[in-house]
Amino acid sequence: MEFLRNTWYVALWSQDLAPEQMISRKFLNEPIVLFRQADGKAAALADACAHRFSPLSMGKVVKGANVRCPYHGLEYDGTGKCVFNPHSTGQIPPAMKVRSYPVAEKHSIIWIWMGEKEADLSLIPDFSVLDPDPKKPVSKRDWLLMQASYELIADNLMDLSHSAVIHEGILGSEHTVKGNVTIEQRGTTVKAGRNVPNVPAPGLYDLIYKNDGRQVDLWQDMRWDAPACMLNDTGVTEPGAPREEGTGFYGLHFLTPETETTTYYLFCAVRFNPISWGQPLDGEIQTKISELRRFAFQEQDQTIIKAQQDRILGQKTLQHPVLLDIDAGPVRYRRVLEGLIKQEREATNTLQGKESQAA
Amino acid sequence: MEFLRNTWYVALWSQDLAPEQMISRKFLNEPIVLFRQADGKAAALADACAHRFSPLSMGKVVKGANVRCPYHGLEYDGTGKCVFNPHSTGQIPPAMKVRSYPVAEKHSIIWIWMGEKEADLSLIPDFSVLDPDPKKPVSKRDWLLMQASYELIADNLMDLSHSAVIHEGILGSEHTVKGNVTIEQRGTTVKAGRNVPNVPAPGLYDLIYKNDGRQVDLWQDMRWDAPACMLNDTGVTEPGAPREEGTGFYGLHFLTPETETTTYYLFCAVRFNPISWGQPLDGEIQTKISELRRFAFQEQDQTIIKAQQDRILGQKTLQHPVLLDIDAGPVRYRRVLEGLIKQEREATNTLQGKESQAA
Amino acid sequence: MEFLRNTWYVALWSQDLAPEQMISRKFLNEPIVLFRQADGKAAALADACAHRFSPLSMGKVVKGANVRCPYHGLEYDGTGKCVFNPHSTGQIPPAMKVRSYPVAEKHSIIWIWMGEKEADLSLIPDFSVLDPDPKKPVSKRDWLLMQASYELIADNLMDLSHSAVIHEGILGSEHTVKGNVTIEQRGTTVKAGRNVPNVPAPGLYDLIYKNDGRQVDLWQDMRWDAPACMLNDTGVTEPGAPREEGTGFYGLHFLTPETETTTYYLFCAVRFNPISWGQPLDGEIQTKISELRRFAFQEQDQTIIKAQQDRILGQKTLQHPVLLDIDAGPVRYRRVLEGLIKQEREATNTLQGKESQAA
Repeated sequence: MEFLRNTWYVALWSQDLAPEQMISRKFLNEPIVLFRQADGKAAALADACAHRFSPLSMGKVVKGANVRCPYHGLEYDGTGKCVFNPHSTGQIPPAMKVRSYPVAEKHSIIWIWMGEKEADLSLIPDFSVLDPDPKKPVSKRDWLLMQASYELIADNLMDLSHSAVIHEGILGSEHTVKGNVTIEQRGTTVKAGRNVPNVPAPGLYDLIYKNDGRQVDLWQDMRWDAPACMLNDTGVTEPGAPREEGTGFYGLHFLTPETETTTYYLFCAVRFNPISWGQPLDGEIQTKISELRRFAFQEQDQTIIKAQQDRILGQKTLQHPVLLDIDAGPVRYRRVLEGLIKQEREATNTLQGKESQAA
Repeated sequence: MEFLRNTWYVALWSQDLAPEQMISRKFLNEPIVLFRQADGKAAALADACAHRFSPLSMGKVVKGANVRCPYHGLEYDGTGKCVFNPHSTGQIPPAMKVRSYPVAEKHSIIWIWMGEKEADLSLIPDFSVLDPDPKKPVSKRDWLLMQASYELIADNLMDLSHSAVIHEGILGSEHTVKGNVTIEQRGTTVKAGRNVPNVPAPGLYDLIYKNDGRQVDLWQDMRWDAPACMLNDTGVTEPGAPREEGTGFYGLHFLTPETETTTYYLFCAVRFNPISWGQPLDGEIQTKISELRRFAFQEQDQTIIKAQQDRILGQKTLQHPVLLDIDAGPVRYRRVLEGLIKQEREATNTLQGKESQAA
Repeated sequence: MEFLRNTWYVALWSQDLAPEQMISRKFLNEPIVLFRQADGKAAALADACAHRFSPLSMGKVVKGANVRCPYHGLEYDGTGKCVFNPHSTGQIPPAMKVRSYPVAEKHSIIWIWMGEKEADLSLIPDFSVLDPDPKKPVSKRDWLLMQASYELIADNLMDLSHSAVIHEGILGSEHTVKGNVTIEQRGTTVKAGRNVPNVPAPGLYDLIYKNDGRQVDLWQDMRWDAPACMLNDTGVTEPGAPREEGTGFYGLHFLTPETETTTYYLFCAVRFNPISWGQPLDGEIQTKISELRRFAFQEQDQTIIKAQQDRILGQKTLQHPVLLDIDAGPVRYRRVLEGLIKQEREATNTLQGKESQAA
């Protein structure tokens, strides 16, 4: 599997990285340590000392900003430069440095740039729905390490027809199987829309709509941006009513590959138009919804997707999936993603060609 | 390891597959789901949906006969054809089908045919000793997933001299080490006979013979049929008496490879000539014997054979076993099995040759 | 990883192999069973029966000296010859033998020779400090199976500057970081010396010196002999006083590869010049020191070295460590060891060349 590299991956929820704390992650198979500088800015370094390759994350943050190796006590600053050698003359060889990854903090997320090209802040997709807004309460910012590749999870999210089967009773039901699927692409942004008119509101929607099982129109508009950042604009209205009169939430889904077969899955939801009830009740229901959401992703999706992946990896000869109408979303975003990866590969080859011509 | 394919493997005891139930197995590395049709007939399908490869066995049996995929709800009938698509227009692409394996139910066993050639019912070996007969009570039909290759387990069964060492006190003793070994082959059926005259009856035989430790003649005649279906005609008599006056049991041993290194081992025993005691006691002793048998296979044989396999797999260079007289049984059945596999390989090559000539 | 073979590896502490006992080990990836002969002499055989490759160590010692295979009861003597076949005529094929490894017992250690050349007793390094001497009490002879390669552990031991960081408070402190490193080589013996003048005695040294935190001169002289047998002559004196007036211990460190990534680590310590206290207290402190030592190796060193190894194994492209002054010890012993391995490889190639010329 070839990963897109010159792009922003979601590393952590901002709230999860405290001062003096180090968090060790593997992104795209590369061990990385995240911590905060003296000014609070996040930094990300290769998590292996240049001296003997011990994980820096097993050491500690010293002097408010340096990472100290647990083995021989070398210290690195946020740029990856070794700035202190406690031994002997204290001399520091110029090669004593580790890779530093560009990070950005936006929309309550720490983003990390995994490529060699210069980091381009304009490439962070718009997730301003996560910015503070008293009218749009945000659920628990949660995460899982999923035992499945990010592509299989994105396939799952870009075709929500599975909700009616896997998440029956929570996010769908036998009534919501048949949806009207629409695909829309602007630049490299893909939207997979799904409308299910005039059905009993499924469990979670019924909870937020306080609808007591009456009929609704259900919409689910999943937006995808590279590499795997998704926003699901979803909600319900009285049958026939315009969306503005409905209620729902933005479901946020961020996938960052740990390896080819495992993925950090960060998720939460942002409520909009909480029309049907007062603030106190909202908190209680939000907690229940957060729990249901985690259950749906961890116990239901993960179980099936991991089993699906095991079958695919166990195949002796490559078999192509037989596709249906519902696969329009997965097919489209995969085409865009593969195009971006191909473009990146060709740019690298061209560059290397020029370099070897010049040499 | 190359498996014989155009042959009947034992899939399950008939009793173990209930209506509405799905059982997931891997045979010869291929994931398979077994379930019953509306008319009760068993069916076996590749356990991966043609759409997205999720295991069908994680779904459910619906409409009394169809398997419903857990991911998007596609339904397959017993022939592997997709017969229902709940989404959109409900259209089903012709390619939406999974491999169906021929199955047969005979002698209280569900057999499965793993090859590409047409299934030949006449190739099921005679295990009519398992057919209902009030005079021949059958012990618990039991099974294990053994952590060892089916060949190493068959080697073990085709040379019962190990009983005196591994199963000392249960199936053999220091007195039963020396046996007279005879080999007989008819077609592809191999019989490894073993007679041990005038010895104290070993534990389990003493239990069924109620002999209180007196001397007996012990016989063990192990019959092998491809791929690894064995029947052990074994018993004891007063020293010098004819077998008809003795008592004993048929030990049934069926080996079906899950992978190269793991094997489904189905086993039970059928008593004959229960000459020494009344029916009530028989049941109690049978239970005790069933427990001893499972202990012997699971705790004793498996432990040694798994360790043997670890040593073989850990070898850097191929070492051949140094053989003894007692290895006549394993050597003979392996020669027959390898001949059958070679024959199958050549037939496939010839067929492919003809096809490419014709093309 | 290529191992040095024609050399003595430490197999076991002599005390750990009782009569009638079998101990199964893997050295240099080869399964080996160790046991004692009737005369008490240790023997080491390939731990796989020549007949069917079952581990002999799962059988038992019989007739006071033979190893009996658990599968079919074949018996081997200490030279690896099969000397008893209980079956049939009892005939023993001449090929029925297993590899026997030369062993020697010296300095309370069972040594094993892993090469093909004749074992040379003169190659056992001098560890007479382990021989009985009432003035030099020996701590618990202990061992661990370390989850790291023997080279990474030897690197750790040949550069004790890490003590100040990993073992802070026990074997070093912030005061002992800066040491004067000296390297000395005689033949293939390497000594990495380290002197730290005028510092507060670190935890364990303070315990044995009963110094109550006063300043000391600290010395650590680590001696390395192939393949990975180390003796650390270490102690403390009043600042400026000669070593003869100080007190300390010999730290013994023996590394024997189980595999490329796991290592048997045998260790203990021998006290010398216990100048500061009476015999009764010594025992109590020795126990505390033995516990601290095991903690330092198992919980502190192993954790870091295993993590270091994971990082190295996870590298996609080979990266060389950026070295410091403190790496003089590791660099030197590695150079000697690689020279010995190269020499062995060339000798083998020459021999094979001659043999093929002669043929």
